[in-house]
Parts: sequence; C-alpha cells; structure tokens
Amino acid sequence: MKLEVSMSPLEISPGDMQGRVVAVIDVLRASTSIAVALGHGARSIIPVESVDDAITRSKQFERGTVRLAGERKMKPIPGFDMGNSPLEFTAEAVGGQTIIISTTNGTKALMSLQGARDIVVASYVNLTAVSAMLRAAARAAADISIVCAGTEGHFSLEDAACAGRYVTAITKADASLTLNDAACACALIDRKYGDNIAKIFKDSNHGQALSEAGFADDLVACAAVDSHPVVPIYQERQITRLGPDRER
Amino acid sequence: MKLEVSMSPLEISPGDMQGRVVAVIDVLRASTSIAVALGHGARSIIPVESVDDAITRSKQFERGTVRLAGERKMKPIPGFDMGNSPLEFTAEAVGGQTIIISTTNGTKALMSLQGARDIVVASYVNLTAVSAMLRAAARAAADISIVCAGTEGHFSLEDAACAGRYVTAITKADASLTLNDAACACALIDRKYGDNIAKIFKDSNHGQALSEAGFADDLVACAAVDSHPVVPIYQERQITRLGPDRER
Repeated sequence: MKLEVSMSPLEISPGDMQGRVVAVIDVLRASTSIAVALGHGARSIIPVESVDDAITRSKQFERGTVRLAGERKMKPIPGFDMGNSPLEFTAEAVGGQTIIISTTNGTKALMSLQGARDIVVASYVNLTAVSAMLRAAARAAADISIVCAGTEGHFSLEDAACAGRYVTAITKADASLTLNDAACACALIDRKYGDNIAKIFKDSNHGQALSEAGFADDLVACAAVDSHPVVPIYQERQITRLGPDRER
Repeated sequence: MKLEVSMSPLEISPGDMQGRVVAVIDVLRASTSIAVALGHGARSIIPVESVDDAITRSKQFERGTVRLAGERKMKPIPGFDMGNSPLEFTAEAVGGQTIIISTTNGTKALMSLQGARDIVVASYVNLTAVSAMLRAAARAAADISIVCAGTEGHFSLEDAACAGRYVTAITKADASLTLNDAACACALIDRKYGDNIAKIFKDSNHGQALSEAGFADDLVACAAVDSHPVVPIYQERQITRLGPDRER
C-alpha cells in the first residue's frame, strides 16, 4: 500500500484521492485550532471558503449555538467571534457550539479532497491519536495520503515537518508501505529537527510572520505534541470528533 | 535579496519570476542532458512542448544541422534522433548541431518562467559553473529563484536535493540572503545526503523508475558533479552556452 505526501494541495489532481484515507495538515494554525476546539467540547466545525459563506451558513443555526471563526492574512475577520488562534478556542468559548471557520490555507486544502474515503485533520497536538487512526487504515489496506496545506500554494516547512512525523509514526508500524519522494523528504526534515518543534517554527516563514504579528504564544500551543488527543473527521462538510470519547 | 526555491512549477504564479535570475533543475534528466550537449559542442538547444512543435521547428533548419531529441514516459520518441539520455549527447552526435528537445517535465518548467531576467539550466554536472553565475547575480542585487521541475507536478527528491546544493553554494558566499521555506528544506535534504548523490537517486521514485527501465548508467552520468562546467542560458526560446568558452 502507499503512503504519499503532497507538499501542497496544488499537487492534487482530480481523482488522486479516490478511496484514500487522507490527513490534512495546516499546523499554523487551522489544524491545531480545529483539534483544540474539538478537544474543548465544540460540537462540530464547519469549514467554509468565504466570509459570505460563513455568514450565510451561520443563519441556519439557532442563536447562541454557533460561533464564527477565521482569519485573513493572520488577523481575525471583522464581525467574527474569534480568529484562528488556538488559544481562543477555550472550553468556555466553544463548548457545545458549532464553529464555522474560514482560513486562508487549511480550509481550501480540506475542500480539494474529493473522493477520499476518510479525511482527518492532523497536527502536532493530536499526533498520537491521528497516527493510530492512520496506522489502522494502513493495516486495513487503505492507501494513505498526507496533504500539507502549505502557504498560499507554496511549500511550508512546518507542514512538511509535521507530515514527516506522521510518516515516521506510520512506517514504524508497517515498513512495507511504499513512500513517494515527498514522504521520504518530510521524514528526513522531521528527523533533522527531532523534538525541537519550536525551532521549526522559528525557521519557517509563516512562523516568523506569526511571531512578528504578535502570535508568538500560538506557536507554543501549536508545538504542544499530544495536548489534544482527538481525531477530527471531516465528512458531510463538517468536522466532528471520532471515537468513543466523542460524547464525553 | 531573496533566494527562493519552488518545489514544482505549479507553485509559480504569473509575475512571480519578474526580474529574477532563475535556475531550472530537472536533474533526471533534461537539465543534465542539456549541459552535456552544450559541453560537447551543441550550437544550441531548443526546448519545445510537443512532438508536433519539434517537427515543425526542425523544418526551419538546413538538413544535417539539427537533431530531434526527447522522451515520453522516459522512452525515446519514435522517429526522433535521440532520447533524453545524457549518454546519447556525445560530441559526435551533437557537435555543431542544433538540438530540438521535448521532455515531460523539464521543458514545461522552462516555459513557465515568463518575465525572468535570466534563466539558467542547472544540474549536478554544471554545479560550480552555474553556482558562480548565481552568486554573481546575487552580488548584483538580483533576487534568485530555483525552480525544481519535479515529476508531473509532484515534488521530486533529486531536484530538491540538487536545489539544496545550489542554496548552500550561494549562501556560503552571501549569508544575508532571505530564504523561503523550500530553500531551507532543500538545503537540509542536500546536507543529509552529502556527496552520496547515487543514494538520492536510489531513494527517488524517478531514479528507481529509470533504473528499472534500463537507464541505470544515466544515473551515474547525472551524478557526476562538475563533469560539464557550462552555463546554459535560455533566451529567445533557445538555450546556448554562456561565457568566453562559448566558441571553443
């Protein structure tokens, strides 16, 4: 079976994801924020492309049950309840709520995956939980794809490094998987940085930009491996938490 | 000034290359074959997209002054004089000739670079020569882009590793350059493999495919650092050799 990484959603052609189990990674910050929100009791997350879509969709919910979240150029969207900082997705803010979210890269990546069998949202904060799910999929003879959201169509170091950590975790359990070049390169990048995830963010253009924009604390939250051990599954246009703990 | 790598031509948007000095890398095998051909005395190389274009273009030349070269799925094109193997571009085969070439990835990459100030074809076989040219461009305050041809729109390990070697060579002379994430990752991949270029090709999907298709000797030729120290410049739709040695 295959274990392939796409360095950006641009690499994906229609049909590529057909029947695959796909993990989408936008470490800074959408993937992380989604895992944090579900970990803190959000009922579901609905990713949308535009601000207009977000507002239209929100009107289908009862007042007080929905929150609007997202960013443009890292900053919160005017009129929305929250930005895209994982620190905003507290239990108080999101518990029991539906979150409608629009972000620059992560949302678009999710929407590029037509035909996938399962889609899961991956990051460092839910590494072990999502790796276990992907290992189980590989054992059940599914091809696995890991899609880096990247930054506006470009390669991003932090998504590649995180993808590499997943590649290592999955191949450790099943060395028979066939890797593509990107999977091989990402594993190498991960090994180079080891557990120093803060250094990855320091070296990455988007990490630097977030620091400069005043979001340095977000980087600490995004580097907290296994701090929110949830498996966020995207289906029927929303992301919910998989597993027996879902109703906890 | 900037030193940026694109992991594939898909990352490039119109205008991105405006005013830049751009190196295009398709290590296996177009970049290498082009350097070898110019090193062996080819007058010029004309990259074209399609087989039809190649044939049409060839009719504009006097009989005996032009050779048709290229591949589809690694194999020579029926009716063409040569494939895309650097071993075919001997002095006997290409000396004094114009070579019209159509390859799957390298040719398309070259054609995606509208607006670039200078375009150079880079590989391992002309590493030091092309690095020197790029260092000079950086000293003259040009932004530098290195574009990996990749494999059918996907990341390829050997192009990224070779790009990384150029990044290292250029930044050694000028540490003030601002790297993008891809440049940083490529340098890291290059450092990991060091001088073991054969291992890169062994790990790479395209290297493996070439070996299996009977082109293992090509891999040796493509790994021969500095064996053809030419600077191939693409302008006015053809590639010629830069520098005082041009008429040699």
